[in-house]
Amino acid sequence: MPLSTVAIMGDGQMGLVLASALHERGARTRLWGAFPDRVASLNERREEPDRLPGLTVPSDVLITADEREAMSGAMIVISAVPTQYLADVWARIGKHLQNGAGIVSVSKGIEVGTLRRPSQVIADAIGTSCIIQRVCVLSGPTIATELAARQPATMLASATDDELATAVQELLTLSWLRIYTNDDPLGVELAGAVKNVIALAAGIADGMQLGYNAKSALLARGLAEMARLGTAMGASLDTFFGIAGLGDLATTCFCPHGRNRTCGERLGKGESLDAILASTNSVVEGVPTAKGVLALARKQHIEMPITQTVHDILFEGLAPRNAIAQLMERSPKPERIA
Amino acid sequence: MPLSTVAIMGDGQMGLVLASALHERGARTRLWGAFPDRVASLNERREEPDRLPGLTVPSDVLITADEREAMSGAMIVISAVPTQYLADVWARIGKHLQNGAGIVSVSKGIEVGTLRRPSQVIADAIGTSCIIQRVCVLSGPTIATELAARQPATMLASATDDELATAVQELLTLSWLRIYTNDDPLGVELAGAVKNVIALAAGIADGMQLGYNAKSALLARGLAEMARLGTAMGASLDTFFGIAGLGDLATTCFCPHGRNRTCGERLGKGESLDAILASTNSVVEGVPTAKGVLALARKQHIEMPITQTVHDILFEGLAPRNAIAQLMERSPKPERIA
Repeated sequence: MPLSTVAIMGDGQMGLVLASALHERGARTRLWGAFPDRVASLNERREEPDRLPGLTVPSDVLITADEREAMSGAMIVISAVPTQYLADVWARIGKHLQNGAGIVSVSKGIEVGTLRRPSQVIADAIGTSCIIQRVCVLSGPTIATELAARQPATMLASATDDELATAVQELLTLSWLRIYTNDDPLGVELAGAVKNVIALAAGIADGMQLGYNAKSALLARGLAEMARLGTAMGASLDTFFGIAGLGDLATTCFCPHGRNRTCGERLGKGESLDAILASTNSVVEGVPTAKGVLALARKQHIEMPITQTVHDILFEGLAPRNAIAQLMERSPKPERIA
Repeated sequence: MPLSTVAIMGDGQMGLVLASALHERGARTRLWGAFPDRVASLNERREEPDRLPGLTVPSDVLITADEREAMSGAMIVISAVPTQYLADVWARIGKHLQNGAGIVSVSKGIEVGTLRRPSQVIADAIGTSCIIQRVCVLSGPTIATELAARQPATMLASATDDELATAVQELLTLSWLRIYTNDDPLGVELAGAVKNVIALAAGIADGMQLGYNAKSALLARGLAEMARLGTAMGASLDTFFGIAGLGDLATTCFCPHGRNRTCGERLGKGESLDAILASTNSVVEGVPTAKGVLALARKQHIEMPITQTVHDILFEGLAPRNAIAQLMERSPKPERIA
């Protein structure tokens, strides 16, 4: 496939990093943002040294707040928008989607209320029932600051349409970026959502200074409950043990700078959720997602003790110290994975 | 089962920690060491504040260099000896094993040359072919300093004899220690051996400052190749995704103080293996084990690219920088787990 025109919808960290990567790869690249002020400022500066040191968006990448301009003729459209804003954004931009274009979704979360995955929100907004086959989910352990610095990384391009996954793989393969494919976007999206909830738990463990033993056990048990939910919903077990499952979970739980882990750490030290959220202007995706995941688990009659605990700490006033005691004092049992 | 007399054979960090835990649990506990000088000094001090801050071995735990005294009447014998010394130690102590006693093995590694797992070495030393059923493998993410400080932790007690696994679970369950059981000691021992090789790779990545994205992908791909070897040899896939697989691997790769990760970090910074080993007097289990695991992989016709790379860096003069390039430049492919 010749490298086509790519539109990146969303000018957050991931949007900027992908714009620079695609430009390096030789694709004709356009970057769209919803807010004209921010777009104008990005257009002028072409970098965000505070958030993404080392990254420049080259001058021949079009940066625009005009969705029609961004999407016209683009045969690959990358959706890089926080999950809870996806429906609004796609209601606005969907009509400009080129016939036959492939969509690449990088959002991680579950829509509050509807319990839809990002690819479902996009497909519903476009209103074509078969469009979901044209959505490729792109995930993996991808801290944006590290991608900006060109530290080596891997991603997973997942689509039921193998040709689309392979096209995305080819589009993004670079000397510092290795892309794997799989055909289980459902599993990849569930993993991407649940990992932020487990990262909150990992942060709580950090805040309570529980140590590496406890945090690693939590990682393993968290992955097991994520896999349990996923397989009950029809996803493939392998996905959870791959780079978009375990790989992304490990980064999110161990990298000190992640928003979800950091929010958890502050909870573990005794701060209230309200105080934490009031002090940050970024989205802590795991907080709304904890509700969504728990609702999915109930629907599937799946036990998710770590998710339940995080939920109760966030919304039911459970004290972290009591939560740990509860988890440790469950009756001894055989280990069960999925 | 009433709490019986327990003999802990080996006075290293794990031996000391288990002695203190079993005493807390109310078991009659004996601790044996091979070297009379060290035993005498341990008997006097009852602690090792440099290596295990906070830990005391209570005065009613017998500490002895006399294996007969330690093992007499002990219905549980815990073997806490580095893998490469196991054959010699059990040749010496095996004859004192009480009839019907259960053995708990905590060694992690593969014996160089013979490629035997710890439980096989013990069974062969005792010379009874069916004794292997009386060996329970105890593993998990268990940094000794954290156990000494009573930070919460989990372990897996694994035996083909379910009664033995359950007895060990009951013996070690404490308010800060949660024990799971499973029936796949083969998988648990393979995971415990291979994780030290992957931890060397994780350390190399740290030494080269590759970042969390790369290290987490390495963790996921390392677990996949560990699972591939294990299932080819007849182990259960689930074991590798449990606390003794993934859990232990995560601790070993992310805790900054581990010997294997630290050795890898120094390799990644350009030091030679000889210089590193000359500067430490502790066993870096992953170094001999890299050879053993690769030999097992060849026997099973299994691809283990990370183990191969670690092996080549350790023993074939491969430069870490070239190794990373090789791993990143392998042809793009679908993700495959086990």
